[in-house]
Amino acid sequence: MNPGNPAVEDTDAGKGAARAAAADTLALLERGRTLSTPVLRAAVDRLAAPMDTVAAYHFGWIDAHGNPADGDGGKAVRPALALLSAEAAGAPAEVGIPGAVAVELVHNFSLLHDDLMDGDEQRRHRDTVWKVHGPAQAILVGDALFALANEILLELGTVEAGRATRRLTTATRKLIDGQAQDISYEHRERVSVEECLEMEGNKTGALLACAVSIGAVLGGADDRTADKLEEYGYHLGLAFQAVDDLLGIWGDPESTGKQTWSDLRQRKKSLPVVAALAAGGPAAEELGELLAADAKSNDFENFSEEEFAARAALIEAAGGRAWTAEEARRQHAVAIRALDGVDMPQRVRDQLTALADFVVVRKK
Amino acid sequence: MNPGNPAVEDTDAGKGAARAAAADTLALLERGRTLSTPVLRAAVDRLAAPMDTVAAYHFGWIDAHGNPADGDGGKAVRPALALLSAEAAGAPAEVGIPGAVAVELVHNFSLLHDDLMDGDEQRRHRDTVWKVHGPAQAILVGDALFALANEILLELGTVEAGRATRRLTTATRKLIDGQAQDISYEHRERVSVEECLEMEGNKTGALLACAVSIGAVLGGADDRTADKLEEYGYHLGLAFQAVDDLLGIWGDPESTGKQTWSDLRQRKKSLPVVAALAAGGPAAEELGELLAADAKSNDFENFSEEEFAARAALIEAAGGRAWTAEEARRQHAVAIRALDGVDMPQRVRDQLTALADFVVVRKK
Repeated sequence: MNPGNPAVEDTDAGKGAARAAAADTLALLERGRTLSTPVLRAAVDRLAAPMDTVAAYHFGWIDAHGNPADGDGGKAVRPALALLSAEAAGAPAEVGIPGAVAVELVHNFSLLHDDLMDGDEQRRHRDTVWKVHGPAQAILVGDALFALANEILLELGTVEAGRATRRLTTATRKLIDGQAQDISYEHRERVSVEECLEMEGNKTGALLACAVSIGAVLGGADDRTADKLEEYGYHLGLAFQAVDDLLGIWGDPESTGKQTWSDLRQRKKSLPVVAALAAGGPAAEELGELLAADAKSNDFENFSEEEFAARAALIEAAGGRAWTAEEARRQHAVAIRALDGVDMPQRVRDQLTALADFVVVRKK
Repeated sequence: MNPGNPAVEDTDAGKGAARAAAADTLALLERGRTLSTPVLRAAVDRLAAPMDTVAAYHFGWIDAHGNPADGDGGKAVRPALALLSAEAAGAPAEVGIPGAVAVELVHNFSLLHDDLMDGDEQRRHRDTVWKVHGPAQAILVGDALFALANEILLELGTVEAGRATRRLTTATRKLIDGQAQDISYEHRERVSVEECLEMEGNKTGALLACAVSIGAVLGGADDRTADKLEEYGYHLGLAFQAVDDLLGIWGDPESTGKQTWSDLRQRKKSLPVVAALAAGGPAAEELGELLAADAKSNDFENFSEEEFAARAALIEAAGGRAWTAEEARRQHAVAIRALDGVDMPQRVRDQLTALADFVVVRKK
C-alpha cells in the first residue's frame, strides 16, 4: 500500500511543478481563511444558544467541553475560490467575502446532516456533532446554518445578492440530490460509473462551482461569465472528488483523519470501486463476488485490516485505482480549459490554475 | 371535560357570530388551497426520486404504499393569508401564489424535521415521515423543501422576490430558534409564561407573519405596510398557538387527529401548563409537585387516562385553561388592531378579520 496520493505520481508536470503549485496555493487558501473566518464567526454568533455553541464545536473553534480550540477547519478551498471569483470579475477580493461565507455555511449545513444520515462518527479527527450533542442538535444547527447562508447574502439588499442567492439555492438543491443518490446507491448491488460521476457532480461539483461564480456575481459579472466560471468549478469538483475517493481507500489516516480503508468500511460505491467492477476481467469478477457476499455479511464490522487490504488490492488489480487517478487528471484538464472562455486578469487565471493543480496533488 | 374548544364559549360576539366568521373563512381557505396546491405539487414534482414520493406522502397526496390518497393536508391558513396579503397591497390574489407555496414549503420543512427531533409518530392522523420512510429521508426531504421554497421565490427574478425571500429567511431563522427553545424547555423544570410566549411567537407567529406580508411584498408593498401586516400575522399566530395549546390538552382526538391529552403525554410546557404553575395557590402547588415527580418517573409511558385527566383538572383548577383562552382573545384583539395601520380594500380587511375570528374558534 502506498499511503500517499496515487494521482500525483505520474502527472505530466511531475512532482516539482506540483510542489510549486501547492506552495502558491497555500497562500491563497490562507487569504481565503483570513478574510472569511471573522465574518463566518460573526454570522455563527448570531445563532441563539445552544446552537451557537454546537456550531462553534462543529467548526473546530471550541472543544466538546466548550473550551477554545484551534481545530482543523477543513481545507478552505471554497472561500479561496469565492474571493478569486470576485477578482475574476474585476472586483476587489473583499466583494466575494459574503459569498465565501454563504458557501461555507451551506457546505457545513450539508456536513452536519450527512454525518447524521450516514452515521459517521468522525470528521476532521473529531467526533461529529450528532455524536457529541445528539441528533436533534445536528438537524437543528444544520438548518440554522442553511438559513444563515441565505441571510448573509440577502441582507446585502442588492440585485446581485438576489442572483447570488439563486445560484446558491440551485447548488444546494443539487447537493441534496447528490446525497439522495448516495443513500440510494448504498442499497444497490451495482452502480454504473456514470451514476457515480453524476452523484459526485451533485455532491461536490455543484457547490464548488457556486463558490467560483458567487464572488463574480456579487462583483457584477454577467450570467455567461458566471456560467463559465461554474464550469471550471464543477470539473474542479469532480477532480477533487476523484482524489477524495482515492484517499478514502489508500489515504494515510494520519493525514486524512479517517480510518484506514475508510470508504471500504462504509461499503461506499466510490469511483475506484465502480470503475473496477465495470472493467471486467478476473480481478473485477472476484471483487464483485466478494462485495456481494460482504453486503449480506453479518460479520462485516469485525473484518480485519487484511480483509479490507485484500479488497483494495483487487480494486487496484482491476484497474479502479489507475482509472480514478486518470479521471482526476481528465477533469482537471477540462476545468482549466473552461477558464479560456472568460476574460480575467492573468494573475487570477494563474491562481485558479494553481489551485486546480493543488486539488489533484493534495494528500488530505 | 369539554371536548370542544374552550376559547369559543364566552367570546363577546357569541357562538352565532363565530359560526358566521367560520363560514366566510372556509371559502377563503378553499381559495388558498385551490390556487396554491397545483403550484405546490408542481414544485414538489421537481424533486428527484425518492424525495418526490416521500414529500407526496408527507403532504397526504399518496399513502405509504404510493397509492393516490386524499389526506388531510392541514388547515391551509397560510396560503389563504398569502393571497389576501397580495390583495391587501392592491395586487391580484394570484401574485401571492409563489409566496403561499414558499411559506407552505418552509412550514412543511419544519414539520418534517420537528417530528423527527421530537420523536412524534403521528401527524394529521397518519404516521410521520420518519416512521414510514426512516430518519434520513425525513432530514433530506425537509432540506429539499427548504431549498425549494427559496427556489420558487428567487426564480421570479424580481427585486420584490429578493425582498420576499429575505423576509422568509428571517421567519425561518425564528422558526428554528423556536424549535431550539422548545427542545431546551423540555429539559427544564420551570418555564416562565414569557419564555413560553417567546417560543410560541418564534415557532408559530413568525411564519404566519411572513405569510401575511409575503404576498404584499410580491405585489410591491413598502416595508412599513409589510411590517404592519406582519404584526397582524404575528399576533394571529400567538392566538392560533394558544388555541392549539388548549386543543393539545382538551381537544377531541376525533377532530385533532392526536391522542387524548396529547401535550401532557409529551410533557409539553405549553401555555395552560406554565400559566397554571405561575398562578400559585394549592392547585398550582399540587400540579407542580406532580409534574416534578412525573419528570423523574420511569413509568410515565404507562400512565392511565385517569392520571392524565387528573393533571388536566389541576391545570384547569389553577386557572391555566381560562388564562390561555383569555390570551387567545387578547392576541386576537391585538392582531385586529394592527390592521388599522394599513390602507387596504374594505373587503380584504373584513376577510382578514374573519380569518382571525376563525382561528380562535376552530376545533382542530
